[in-house]
Amino acid sequence: MNKKAINKSALVLLMGVGLGLGAASSAVAQQTLDDVMKSRGLTQKDLLAAAKTYTPTGGRDEYLAFSSGGQSGQIIVYGIPSMRILKYIAVFTPEPWQGYGFDDESKAVLAQGRIMGKDILYGDTHHPAFSETEGEYNGRYLFINDKANPRLAVIDLHDFETKQIVVNPFFRSDHGGAFVTPNTEYVMESSQYAAPYGTDFVPLEEFNTKYRGGLTYWKFDDKKGRIDPEHSFTFEFPPYSQDLSDAGKKVSNGWGFTNSFCSERYVGGIERGRPPFEAGCSQKDTDFMHVTNWKKAAELVAAGKVKKVNGAYLITMDQAVKEGLLYLIPEPKSPHGVDVSPDGAYIIVSGKLDSHAWVYSWEKISKAIAAKKFEGKDPYGIPIISMKDTLHTQVQVGLGPLHSQYDSKKCVVYTSIYVDSMVTKWDYCKGKVLDQLHIHYNIGHLVSMEGDSVSPDGKYLIALNKLAIDRFNPVGPLHPQNHQLIDISGDKMQLLYDMPVPLGEPHYVVAIKADKLKPAIRYKSGWNSREDKRSVWRTRAGREKVVREGNTVHVYGTLIRSHITPEIIEVTEGDTVSIHLTNLERAQDETHGFAMYGQNVNLSIEPGKTVSATFKADKAGVYPYYCTEFCSALHLEMQGYLLVRPKGYKAKAGAIQEGQKYTKADYDKQVKTNLDTQAVINSVVGFITSHNYKDFPTVVALVEDATEQLGFADEAKKKSEEYATKGDYQNATLWAGQWWQYQVKTADMGLRAKTHLEENRAVKVSK
Amino acid sequence: MNKKAINKSALVLLMGVGLGLGAASSAVAQQTLDDVMKSRGLTQKDLLAAAKTYTPTGGRDEYLAFSSGGQSGQIIVYGIPSMRILKYIAVFTPEPWQGYGFDDESKAVLAQGRIMGKDILYGDTHHPAFSETEGEYNGRYLFINDKANPRLAVIDLHDFETKQIVVNPFFRSDHGGAFVTPNTEYVMESSQYAAPYGTDFVPLEEFNTKYRGGLTYWKFDDKKGRIDPEHSFTFEFPPYSQDLSDAGKKVSNGWGFTNSFCSERYVGGIERGRPPFEAGCSQKDTDFMHVTNWKKAAELVAAGKVKKVNGAYLITMDQAVKEGLLYLIPEPKSPHGVDVSPDGAYIIVSGKLDSHAWVYSWEKISKAIAAKKFEGKDPYGIPIISMKDTLHTQVQVGLGPLHSQYDSKKCVVYTSIYVDSMVTKWDYCKGKVLDQLHIHYNIGHLVSMEGDSVSPDGKYLIALNKLAIDRFNPVGPLHPQNHQLIDISGDKMQLLYDMPVPLGEPHYVVAIKADKLKPAIRYKSGWNSREDKRSVWRTRAGREKVVREGNTVHVYGTLIRSHITPEIIEVTEGDTVSIHLTNLERAQDETHGFAMYGQNVNLSIEPGKTVSATFKADKAGVYPYYCTEFCSALHLEMQGYLLVRPKGYKAKAGAIQEGQKYTKADYDKQVKTNLDTQAVINSVVGFITSHNYKDFPTVVALVEDATEQLGFADEAKKKSEEYATKGDYQNATLWAGQWWQYQVKTADMGLRAKTHLEENRAVKVSK
Repeated sequence: MNKKAINKSALVLLMGVGLGLGAASSAVAQQTLDDVMKSRGLTQKDLLAAAKTYTPTGGRDEYLAFSSGGQSGQIIVYGIPSMRILKYIAVFTPEPWQGYGFDDESKAVLAQGRIMGKDILYGDTHHPAFSETEGEYNGRYLFINDKANPRLAVIDLHDFETKQIVVNPFFRSDHGGAFVTPNTEYVMESSQYAAPYGTDFVPLEEFNTKYRGGLTYWKFDDKKGRIDPEHSFTFEFPPYSQDLSDAGKKVSNGWGFTNSFCSERYVGGIERGRPPFEAGCSQKDTDFMHVTNWKKAAELVAAGKVKKVNGAYLITMDQAVKEGLLYLIPEPKSPHGVDVSPDGAYIIVSGKLDSHAWVYSWEKISKAIAAKKFEGKDPYGIPIISMKDTLHTQVQVGLGPLHSQYDSKKCVVYTSIYVDSMVTKWDYCKGKVLDQLHIHYNIGHLVSMEGDSVSPDGKYLIALNKLAIDRFNPVGPLHPQNHQLIDISGDKMQLLYDMPVPLGEPHYVVAIKADKLKPAIRYKSGWNSREDKRSVWRTRAGREKVVREGNTVHVYGTLIRSHITPEIIEVTEGDTVSIHLTNLERAQDETHGFAMYGQNVNLSIEPGKTVSATFKADKAGVYPYYCTEFCSALHLEMQGYLLVRPKGYKAKAGAIQEGQKYTKADYDKQVKTNLDTQAVINSVVGFITSHNYKDFPTVVALVEDATEQLGFADEAKKKSEEYATKGDYQNATLWAGQWWQYQVKTADMGLRAKTHLEENRAVKVSK
Repeated sequence: MNKKAINKSALVLLMGVGLGLGAASSAVAQQTLDDVMKSRGLTQKDLLAAAKTYTPTGGRDEYLAFSSGGQSGQIIVYGIPSMRILKYIAVFTPEPWQGYGFDDESKAVLAQGRIMGKDILYGDTHHPAFSETEGEYNGRYLFINDKANPRLAVIDLHDFETKQIVVNPFFRSDHGGAFVTPNTEYVMESSQYAAPYGTDFVPLEEFNTKYRGGLTYWKFDDKKGRIDPEHSFTFEFPPYSQDLSDAGKKVSNGWGFTNSFCSERYVGGIERGRPPFEAGCSQKDTDFMHVTNWKKAAELVAAGKVKKVNGAYLITMDQAVKEGLLYLIPEPKSPHGVDVSPDGAYIIVSGKLDSHAWVYSWEKISKAIAAKKFEGKDPYGIPIISMKDTLHTQVQVGLGPLHSQYDSKKCVVYTSIYVDSMVTKWDYCKGKVLDQLHIHYNIGHLVSMEGDSVSPDGKYLIALNKLAIDRFNPVGPLHPQNHQLIDISGDKMQLLYDMPVPLGEPHYVVAIKADKLKPAIRYKSGWNSREDKRSVWRTRAGREKVVREGNTVHVYGTLIRSHITPEIIEVTEGDTVSIHLTNLERAQDETHGFAMYGQNVNLSIEPGKTVSATFKADKAGVYPYYCTEFCSALHLEMQGYLLVRPKGYKAKAGAIQEGQKYTKADYDKQVKTNLDTQAVINSVVGFITSHNYKDFPTVVALVEDATEQLGFADEAKKKSEEYATKGDYQNATLWAGQWWQYQVKTADMGLRAKTHLEENRAVKVSK
C-alpha cells in the first residue's frame, strides 16, 4: 500500500529479519524418535539402516556410482550410501537440459556415432568402466557401450561430459563392452549377435561361413583422453554370441577373457515352425570362453603384421590360431559374467541356466597353453583347452547365477542369483558358501565398491534388480528398476536401502571412492568443452558483435546475470543464423540457459563455456529468446528477440516509443535507494570481513563473485551519472536501475556468505 | 566339471538351498546405532530426520510429487517423504527408454506439438497441475506447459503417459501455465514475452500497438481426457510480460488472476547502448494483476458472441472491457506468484524485488468491481482498481519473496524468499510472521501437500532451490538442483532431507496423496495407449503375419518370454517396413523392449500394449534386433534378424546348416531333465497351495502368471513328442529344450511367490 515501503523494505530486511534468523531455526524437535518409529512402522533394524544411509544437508557420499542408463542411452550418477541420484550424463541420446544434441559442439560428438550416415538418437548402454592405472581406478575417464548400435563413448570425469563416440567397424551389436586393461591401454568391446562383417546382405544360409563375432581392443590415448581408432584392432571370432569380457590383471595381465552363448550357432525362425532362438541357443551343456592374448596381438599390430580391413586392423581366426593368440575353454551353458579376481589368478564364470559358479585357474590355463595341451578344436580351428585342465573348483551358489563381484577380503566374492533372487557370498579359494541374502527381485549385475580394480574396497554392495514389481508406489505399467544397497562390512550381508531407478534399465554400475574425483566447477573463459580447447567462437565482455558472411549471420554474444548481449538480433528471412554464446560468469553453479521460440534452439552454458546454435531463419517473424536457468532475481528479465525480416523489408522511420517516461524525480529516488542499499551492502561486507571468512572456501568464492558484481554496479553508476549530467533523465534513471540490479545481485551473494558463516560458526577476527 | 551336475543342479537348488534361506537373512546387525552415528557424524536431530524419511524395502510413500523437469522437457515423479525418484515421464522431449518419440504412436503425440511445421524436440516445462473435482485433486490427469514454445501437454495418471500436446494459437512463449479451474473446466495458460499475434514479422517500433500478451483458457473434456481446442478461448492482454496465474476457488470461483512484470513495456537493446531489459523492466514500483471473469467469458463464447481469429476464439481487450470481463490491480513490482487461498477469499502476491507479501481480499475486489470503483485506466483502456481498495494486509516476509503455499491450518501460509534463501511461515489473516527457516540456497517455488487444492494437507513442504552450489558431491560445472524436504507438522519448520535433482531444473511441483492414484499395471491386450483404444495393428498369439502392401511391408508381431515372433523378417531394399508389436504378457512389470541395429528403432512395449515402428529399409544388409528389457533368464536369446535383400536378389538353393546335431540320446536326456524339473515345480506349487496364498495379491498374480507359462510348456511338450514320434530328434530335442525353458520361467515365478509367502509369514491352511 505504502509505495515507499517497497523501496525501503530491502534495507529493513537486510538489517533486521536477516540477522535474527538463528534462533528460530535452531529450535529442537518436539517429537521423540519412538513416536516417529511407531507412526511409520519402523523396526530397530530399519532405524540402523536409516542411520547408515541418511546424509544430512551438505554431507558428502563416500562413493559415487556410475550406472549405465540402459535404453535411456545415458549414464546415471548416484551417491553411496545415500543412494541419491546426482546427475544424468547425456551420452548417446540428445538431452536438452545439458544442451546435448542441441548445441553445435555436442551435435558434432553425436555425429561421430552415425551409422551408415543415419543419426541414431538413442543408445542401449550396458557396461560402464573407469580408466585405470596399474589396475586401480584413476578417476579420469569413463567408457560405456551401446549394444544396439555397436558404439563406445568416452566421458571425461573432469566435467562429466561425453567427448567422443566411436562406431565399431565390424559388428552389428555389442553387449560385452566396456572393459579396460590395467593401464587403460585398451578398451574391450565384443560383439553379441553374429552378423556379416561389412554392410552387405548375406543370407542366413551362409551363417556358419560368413556371419562372425569378434572382440575389438580400442586403443586409448590417455594424454588426449580419446580413443585412437587408427591403432585399435579386432579379433575375428566364430559366429557364437559373444557376451561379456574382462581383462586379465597382475598375473594374467596381457590377456582377455570373453564369454559366449549359443555356441550351437542356432538360427531361429519360430514363424516358420522352427523352435525359437531361446530353445536352440541353450541346448548344449557348455559354451566357450574365448581367451585372447592382447599384448602379443598389439606387438603384431605394431610390427605391421596385421592387415587392415575397411580401414581397421583385423586379426583373422587363422592368424590368431597360428600366432597363438586365441584359445577356447568350455564353460557352463549360457554364461553371463566372466570376472577376473583382483590378483588376476582366478576367473569366475556362471552359467545362467545352472546353479554353480565355476572357478578357473589362470595358472592352469597358462600351463595348458604353454604345454599346447588341447582337447580338440572348434569348427573354426581354434584350440580348445579342456574344462578339467583349467578348473579350480565349482560351487553351488543358487539357481541362475550371473555375475560376481569381489570383496576387500581375500577369496571372498558375491554372486548374483537371478532365478532365486538372491546374492550368494562365497569363498572361491576354498569353494564354500558363506552367506545368502534375498533381494527384490531377479538380480542382474551387482557391484561392490571399486570391485573391478586390483584392490576392491568391499563395504557396500549394490544389487541391480531387473524387476521391481511391488517394491514402490505404482507409477503405471512401466516400472522403475530397483537398486538395493547391501552392507557387506560384516560377516552377514545386511539389506540397507531400496533405490528406484526412474529412467532406463541399468545393466551394470561401477563405483569409485568419491575423493578420487576432482571435477571442475568452471571452464577457462571461452571454452569448447567437447574439443577441450578455446572456442574459435569465444567472446569477451564488451566485444560482442554480429558478423555477416554471405547468407550466414554470426552472432558473438555473452551471458551474465541478468542479461544476454545482444538483446535484439536482426536477420533476413533465409539467412543461416549462428549464435555463439560465452558465459562470462566465474561463480560456481552460475549456469545460464538459452532457449528460442520455434527454432529447436536450447542451450546450457556453464561458467566459462562457449556454445553455438546454428539454424536457418526460414520464416519471417518474431522469435523471443531467454535464459532458462534461474540465475538471479532478474532471471525472467534475461530475454531478447530475434527479428527475422521478410526479404526486401524496408524499415519505417521512427524509434521505439518508450512505454514509460522518467523524470529527474524518478532519477533522484532511484539514486537514493541505491545509496541506502550500498550502506546495507557495506554492513554485510563488514560482517563478513570481521570474521574468519578466508577459512571458508565457499565464502571466499562468494566474496569474489560479489566483488565482481559490485564492479559492474560501478560501471552502470557511471553511465547513469553521465546521462544525468546531460539532463537525459530517461537513460539516467534506467541505468540507475541497472546499477541497483547489480547491487541486489551483490546483496544476494553477501547474504548467502553471511548465512554460511553463521551456520558454520565462524569466529570474529581482529583486523 | 561334472556335466551331469549342470542339469541336475536346478533341482537340488530348488529343494535344498532355496528352502534354507530364511535363517541366513534374518541375522541381526552386530553394530550398534551409536557406533554408526559416531562414525557417520550424525546428530540426534539427524537421526530423527532419518527416521522421518527412511522407507524400508517394499514400503510406500505417503505422497507423490509431480515435478516439472525444466529444460529436460519431462515430468519427474518422486515419493514423499523418502524423496526417491520413481519415474521420469517423457512429455516434450523424445525419450528412448519409454520409446517416446520412437514408436509411431508417440511420434503422433509429439507431432501435435510442431511449430510452423518444425519438430520441436525439447520443452522448457514449468508448472504442473492436477485435474480437480470441486477444487480437490482427483488424481486423474496432469497438465504441464512448455515456456519456450507455448504448448500444453496432458498426462494420464492411469498409465503415466503423455496423451496430447496443444500449441497456443496466439503466443510466442508462456510461463504461466498450467493452472486449472476447480472442476477442470479450463486449463489456464498465459503468455510471457509479448509478441505479435500471427506469425508475421512486426518491427519492435510497433511494440506498444501490435505486440500483445494474453491468457488462454483451454477447455478440458474430462470424459475424453483431452483438451478441446475448438471450445477454448483466449483473452487479449496488453504487451506486459504476463507471468503466473491462479484460478479462483469457492467464493472467487469463476475468476482468474494473472500477474505481470515489465508493465513498463520496456524494450532493451544493450548492444545499441540501451540499458538492458532487466533495468527497464523493473523500474516502476508496481505492475498489474489481471483479473478475468472466465465464467462469463465462457457464456459469451457459448452464446456465439466471441469471434474466432486463426480458428480460435479471441476476446479482444475492447470486448473484455465492454463486457466487464477484465480488470487490473496494481501489485508490488516484478511479482512472481499469485496464490489464491484454499477458501478463495484471499490472493497473495509478492514482488520479487520487495520484501513484503501482499494479501488482497476477494471481497474487496468484487465490491470494487460491482461498484465500478476504479482509479483509472491503463493505456489500453482496461479499468484499474486501486491497491488501497483491494488490499487486506501487507507483511514483511524477507528479501525477494516469490511464491506462497497454504497449510492445512487456517490462515497459515509459507512463502519462498529467494534472496534471503529462506522460507517464511506467516499468518495471512492477522498479518504476522510465525517462523523462518534457512534453506540451501535461493528458493524458487515451494510446495505443500495438496497445497493448491481447497483443502491442503500441510504435513510436508518442499523447497525447490535454484542453486545447490556446495550441497552435494561435485559432478562438474553443471550442478543438480536441490529439493529440500521440510516437516511442517509442528509449530517450527524442521529441515528433513536434501534431494538432488539430477536432470533438468524443476520450476514447480504438485504433490498428491498417493492413495488417490490407481495406476494400471497392464493394458487391455492390443492397446494403443496414446489414443486410448484397441490398436488396428494388434495381433494375438498364433496370428502373427507379414502383409505386403505395395512397397510397404507390415509385420504383425508378438513378444512373450523369451521370443519375438517373427524371428526372421525378410524385405527388399527400398521397402518401407512397419513393425507392429503386441506384448502378450499379463504379468506386472513384464515389459519387453525392441531395438534394431542402425535404424533408430527402439521401443518399449508394456504388458498388453501394441506399438509400431515404421522406417525405410534403404540399404541392403543384416539388421539384428532384440529385446532390451531383461525379462527372463533367456532374455539375451530373445533376438531376431531383419534381412534386407538387394533388389532383384535370387535366393540360392539350400537350407540353413544346423551348427549342432541332436540324437535320441540328447532328446531322452532333455526329457529326463524336464520330468525332474516338473517334480520340483510340483513341490513348489504344493508349498504355495498349502499356504493361505490367496490372501496375498502379489502371489495370486504370480501364480496366474506361472500357470500361463506352464500352459506354454505343455504346448512345447506336445510338439516335442510329435517330432519324437516321427523320429525327428533334431526338432524333438529343440522343442523339449523349449518346454524346459517354460519350466524355468515357471520356477522363477514360483520361487518368487514362495519367498514372498515366507517373508510375509503366510500360514499353512488345510485344504
